[in-house]
Amino acid sequence: MRVIVVGGSGTIGSAVVAALSARDEVVVAGRKTGTIHVDLASPESIRSMFQSVGVFDAVVSAAGQAKFGTLDDLTDADYLFSFSNKLMGQANLVRIGRQFIADGGSFTLTSGVLGQEPIKGSASISMVNAGLEGFVRAAALELPRGIRVNVVSPPWVTETLIARKMDPSHGMPAARVAQAYLASVEGTMTGQTLDPRKLAGG
Amino acid sequence: MRVIVVGGSGTIGSAVVAALSARDEVVVAGRKTGTIHVDLASPESIRSMFQSVGVFDAVVSAAGQAKFGTLDDLTDADYLFSFSNKLMGQANLVRIGRQFIADGGSFTLTSGVLGQEPIKGSASISMVNAGLEGFVRAAALELPRGIRVNVVSPPWVTETLIARKMDPSHGMPAARVAQAYLASVEGTMTGQTLDPRKLAGG
Repeated sequence: MRVIVVGGSGTIGSAVVAALSARDEVVVAGRKTGTIHVDLASPESIRSMFQSVGVFDAVVSAAGQAKFGTLDDLTDADYLFSFSNKLMGQANLVRIGRQFIADGGSFTLTSGVLGQEPIKGSASISMVNAGLEGFVRAAALELPRGIRVNVVSPPWVTETLIARKMDPSHGMPAARVAQAYLASVEGTMTGQTLDPRKLAGG
Repeated sequence: MRVIVVGGSGTIGSAVVAALSARDEVVVAGRKTGTIHVDLASPESIRSMFQSVGVFDAVVSAAGQAKFGTLDDLTDADYLFSFSNKLMGQANLVRIGRQFIADGGSFTLTSGVLGQEPIKGSASISMVNAGLEGFVRAAALELPRGIRVNVVSPPWVTETLIARKMDPSHGMPAARVAQAYLASVEGTMTGQTLDPRKLAGG
């Protein structure tokens, strides 16, 4: 398979690239890194990526920004930024990419544990994560040609916690999180929210 | 209690008003109807409503527009409209209203069954309904002074199905849906998504 990994230079993305590379051809895309640059907030940039990359069988996104902040701190602009970037940006990978992807192809997006298990400061992130999961459930019903779409909801990642000098004991190593993305790319499910904590081998 | 019901002239809203009126003072707000006019898409309009209404103990919203349409038909503008109106508009009732509401007050918003149980054409609606539920889970963690927030996810309403000449046999009467709003206003739960189909007496 030929797989585009958007955000393929990030902590989760690079683990997904490593896991896929054993048997697939991987094209790494990113905002500032990778073979192809793409700005998720720009539909034109997403369209340009798909037009330039040629034939592909799967898209994995481990990208998309959203604002962390308290109800007091988050502005109207912060909510709109999170919507346009992590939520609509990833939805647009499906809305635009479905016109380019091969028959039987798949999209695998990223939400996050805060969508269903919020903490103080996650109002905007919880909104867009849960919203993306809602979009994926619905979009899966309409994709033609055997095309699938799922979303992975990663828990806190060990490497991220260590980088932020937080307690890593409740994290999951990125390599294990990546297995949920492989399950989506290589499996047959669609419209699902995949929780890496609930996959076999946990 | 003094309760503001936004969308209080709609099918669900008027049933909520009828149910509350037995023991509470109700102020009906709406886009074009009711005692106070409010445009959910406008934070200024929401602020103006709260400033003019005086002291209140609860806000119920059975309002907010979102676009129904296939993946082919829905435009960027349709998704942004749904976000700004049904999702961010109702979130803004909490973000702005929390500065005005009485101690121990409550917000009760409306998502809908399509958030978790999509149909073809519901991509934008499923996104905003699920996103609103995510926001409510998170916002509940930060509200001060005993203020609560919940969201009701109504099933198809019998009266709506009849008005649209659809099969009403799988609908729930608005008066029974309204009981979920009362449970939120009068109960102690917060951060919850209430499904009227799962309430006692079902």
